[in-house]
Amino acid sequence: MKPSESIKAVVFDVFGTCVDWRSGVAREVALAAARRSVAIDAHGFADAWRGRYQPAMEEVRSGRRPWTILDVLHRESLDALLPKFGLGMLDEAERRDLARAWHRLDPWPDVVDGLARLRRRYVIAPMSNGNVALLLNMARRAGLPWDLILGAETSRAYKPLPGSYLNAVAMLGLEPGEVMLGAAHEDDLRAAAAVGLRTGFVARPLEFGEGRRTDRGDAAPWDIVARDFGELAARLDC
Amino acid sequence: MKPSESIKAVVFDVFGTCVDWRSGVAREVALAAARRSVAIDAHGFADAWRGRYQPAMEEVRSGRRPWTILDVLHRESLDALLPKFGLGMLDEAERRDLARAWHRLDPWPDVVDGLARLRRRYVIAPMSNGNVALLLNMARRAGLPWDLILGAETSRAYKPLPGSYLNAVAMLGLEPGEVMLGAAHEDDLRAAAAVGLRTGFVARPLEFGEGRRTDRGDAAPWDIVARDFGELAARLDC
Repeated sequence: MKPSESIKAVVFDVFGTCVDWRSGVAREVALAAARRSVAIDAHGFADAWRGRYQPAMEEVRSGRRPWTILDVLHRESLDALLPKFGLGMLDEAERRDLARAWHRLDPWPDVVDGLARLRRRYVIAPMSNGNVALLLNMARRAGLPWDLILGAETSRAYKPLPGSYLNAVAMLGLEPGEVMLGAAHEDDLRAAAAVGLRTGFVARPLEFGEGRRTDRGDAAPWDIVARDFGELAARLDC
Repeated sequence: MKPSESIKAVVFDVFGTCVDWRSGVAREVALAAARRSVAIDAHGFADAWRGRYQPAMEEVRSGRRPWTILDVLHRESLDALLPKFGLGMLDEAERRDLARAWHRLDPWPDVVDGLARLRRRYVIAPMSNGNVALLLNMARRAGLPWDLILGAETSRAYKPLPGSYLNAVAMLGLEPGEVMLGAAHEDDLRAAAAVGLRTGFVARPLEFGEGRRTDRGDAAPWDIVARDFGELAARLDC
């Protein structure tokens, strides 16, 4: 059966798949540093901040820490990193604003049009570890036309835990096989497939910067492998 | 301070406030009965079905029953009512379809335009006891342009419990005073105001049919009292 005959919703990983977190965070960090006349490796800062993402979530996934939204984890990582980059003088207002850089990321150029096409036929939603307010503010700023916002906060579980996907599927009132996850990360797709979701790989060769390694979509027989959201929409008959 | 200076999101009661549940349910029941050649008081059926709504939720609110979404409560009420209206012969497929009548309700004529105006300036979302899939399917069918879907299921608490409102406010990343509830029901507004939300009353004199009593917006000094969503938008400077 073609995917388009059984799928009713397409949910998406967001950081890296829909938006270019590295350029966006670097832009915001560079602005904050310039206001303090500090020279900084802004892309290095973005990489270091993102590097604390999985360990911070693992504290919650493991149960060592009660449920905590990503905005809080991002702020804690930021506070830990700032002194290492010569930005320990940033005050509370500057830190609060910079922590929300993740709310102000730009989509890759193919995303808004691809989502608009997909939405004509399918329910579309983020399925992200970002919290609801982050994804909401990002969507309004970037024009991402989600039907609703799903993710770790509505599921109360961080990806790749099974509940992160299955609670979202249940909220949609669907079966796992009626939902496709679109993602640039094969570990995310693998976890979704393990609990019955369909899978759409979208290549994002520039996620980590020029010349850096990214997943290529060949780690497993994903239902669809696409070079961008336009091709994903076309393969899903939109 | 004018409401529009402090408010960042407007959330809405749905059944009665946004959509005409009585006409919609009656239409669907009449169709189901006609297919079985049964004569029925379709509006009486709608009123009886809605009459079981608060008692069913109270089992959950009181803690006597674990969390259960409204689709399930609606289906149980339907199964109990059908024999009383001579429709005990409806089979599983007919019952499943009829239980989803609540997903297929029409908005009052002023709602889609009013929400589109409000959305330019404010985050808009349902804040309903309906479950996510119900509100999602309703929104796609009726063209309700929500930014996201909030409600009892995302809050894991039925209105008017304080958590139903406060968990939604927290997900929005806002303070209670930055969120207005729009509703045609003064008990809903009273509960929201008690936990700090702003209040917008919208009159729906036909919710229960011609000549039946509805709230008039005079039970308390609500922040706004409007005759429809157009006036609500205007009063909120949209």
